[in-house]
Amino acid sequence: MKLNFEQLGDLAVGAAFLGTGGGGDPYVGRLMVQQCIHEGCEVEVIDPQSLDDDSLVIPTAMMGAPTVLVEKIPSGQEAVASLKRLEKRLGRKADATMPIEIGGINSTIPLVVGARLGLPIVDADGMGRAFPFLEMETFGVYGISGSPMAVSNEWGDCALIEAVDNRQMEWLSRAVAIRMGGCAYIAEYAMSGADVKRTAIPNTLTLAIRIGEVLRKAHEDHQNPIEALLGFLPSTLYRYGRVIFKGKIVDVMRETKAGFTMGRARIDGIAPFSSSMDIEIQNENLVARVNGEVKAIVPDLISIMNTETAEPITSENLRYGQRVTVVAVSVPDIMRTPEALAVFGPACFGLQEPFTSIEELA
Amino acid sequence: MKLNFEQLGDLAVGAAFLGTGGGGDPYVGRLMVQQCIHEGCEVEVIDPQSLDDDSLVIPTAMMGAPTVLVEKIPSGQEAVASLKRLEKRLGRKADATMPIEIGGINSTIPLVVGARLGLPIVDADGMGRAFPFLEMETFGVYGISGSPMAVSNEWGDCALIEAVDNRQMEWLSRAVAIRMGGCAYIAEYAMSGADVKRTAIPNTLTLAIRIGEVLRKAHEDHQNPIEALLGFLPSTLYRYGRVIFKGKIVDVMRETKAGFTMGRARIDGIAPFSSSMDIEIQNENLVARVNGEVKAIVPDLISIMNTETAEPITSENLRYGQRVTVVAVSVPDIMRTPEALAVFGPACFGLQEPFTSIEELA
Repeated sequence: MKLNFEQLGDLAVGAAFLGTGGGGDPYVGRLMVQQCIHEGCEVEVIDPQSLDDDSLVIPTAMMGAPTVLVEKIPSGQEAVASLKRLEKRLGRKADATMPIEIGGINSTIPLVVGARLGLPIVDADGMGRAFPFLEMETFGVYGISGSPMAVSNEWGDCALIEAVDNRQMEWLSRAVAIRMGGCAYIAEYAMSGADVKRTAIPNTLTLAIRIGEVLRKAHEDHQNPIEALLGFLPSTLYRYGRVIFKGKIVDVMRETKAGFTMGRARIDGIAPFSSSMDIEIQNENLVARVNGEVKAIVPDLISIMNTETAEPITSENLRYGQRVTVVAVSVPDIMRTPEALAVFGPACFGLQEPFTSIEELA
Repeated sequence: MKLNFEQLGDLAVGAAFLGTGGGGDPYVGRLMVQQCIHEGCEVEVIDPQSLDDDSLVIPTAMMGAPTVLVEKIPSGQEAVASLKRLEKRLGRKADATMPIEIGGINSTIPLVVGARLGLPIVDADGMGRAFPFLEMETFGVYGISGSPMAVSNEWGDCALIEAVDNRQMEWLSRAVAIRMGGCAYIAEYAMSGADVKRTAIPNTLTLAIRIGEVLRKAHEDHQNPIEALLGFLPSTLYRYGRVIFKGKIVDVMRETKAGFTMGRARIDGIAPFSSSMDIEIQNENLVARVNGEVKAIVPDLISIMNTETAEPITSENLRYGQRVTVVAVSVPDIMRTPEALAVFGPACFGLQEPFTSIEELA
């Protein structure tokens, strides 16, 4: 499937929704892909099932703080450089690239890389959302090594990380990304087509496009976009979603620390919601509580949407006074196994509460 | 020349002197080399002039805070791993290894690597002393790229840094070294035999051994070791040295920060020296002042020696109450050119004062 401009617009919205606040502003990524298409490049998205088992897929992404990204715009060549460095390291050309996360700009970085290099982009990812740490990948949960990994910046510097495990890879590469200015561009989790089919969350790129489309069409048809979205989800791997809060943002604490956007948002309820909701943030929205009681918790999705426009709001764009609707969504089963929760469950973020699914919390 | 145990002891002392406080405790390095010799390995030191022009030399070293090194003892395999990683990257086996600095443990790390791999160690280095930053190499001053560089730890992690210049190499690799626990083991500035002859400071390993020997023999002969040393220096590239202060350490401020040992020491004078000397430290002793007046400044050597034993004291071993003699020594001409001072002169450490040679300051 060749992506067109309308689909790119839908993707930016859907990826912001699936990014649950993180992954970087997809608007920037959208402009980058549009530029590629303007220059005559094609963005070809392929189904993971169409991959040869022995093909080589090299995923590409941005890593770093979304707050930095909006001021330090990439040229698009950084991630290309990382993919090329990994090709050199592996002694083999990539047959395709792929997102490592579907959230935010990381849904579009691989599109830019694919367009520039004439590579197809696999319609799948390893997070099914956005997560702040690189080891938080279904790829890794199901046995794929993130290393060797290439980290590049806009100057032409490159660090090749060969770590003993995916947590060390994250730990070491994060230090490099911080010194590259707070965000950098990476290629990692190189794997075979067979491994993509075994470990990736399938069809999340097209899912993000569909989510954006559902929201856009509901707008055009003067229907409630959030209700339309909740009606659409049961036909996907993200089977269940509901509104968990509605209100006005009355406080945002946000800082760029240790290479991440860390923060907290408080939302005062608007009837029928009373009291306040507190949302904790590490790039992504991690947990939503009302009076200390969990209403949704990672890895389930917590998306803060503009109540008027149904636009998902990323962490770096949260502002005092915004009227918002908080939507929680169940993640695919592959992300709720004990192995998966050991890598990206609440404890991995230092949260005290155990994982409880949004269905159970209803 | 095959090094023996006595020479190792002399080297540890001489390297601590040339390290001007930095480079890490040579005692640790000495034990590592002794262990190699015990196991039957040979430590063969060769003259740079004996290198074939097209041979490949890969220098090896520790990088990080000396304060960390004394608690986190290396196994010796870390630097071997870095050299092997560079060999793989360059597609060629090394013909020899070499120190990047002659100070402290970094005079002995290449001996361990050479002994383990059966490689000769070139009798030369790129600092002629110790410096805290990796770009501060005569290699780099005279055109050699530090990249590609390998950084390894004791776990088996490795980062290959390919930076656009040697300052970026330092900047990025330092972040990795910090996350590896504050010290790491590296291979960098891979170069041809011709480039070693052109850019290295020659015969500094044997110089360090000779310095240790001069101090030891003076002891044995019941002569003043420091006077013996000052009498010996004019026959070397380090032509001029003198005692610039004598006293008691009355204050030491020291912290491990940003991957370095940062600090300050105050020495109260003992007659004929009055007032106090303040020494500023970044791993190494950078500048010695009395009442704000410079008495010696980087890159000239400032070595703090135990007045009783004439043992050089490294930064992490400075203690209240030590009776010390401060010796300043001129560095070789190759280290005082405008190009060299632009890379490791006082301004490179944020010092306000210009470089004034110890001869002029007399």
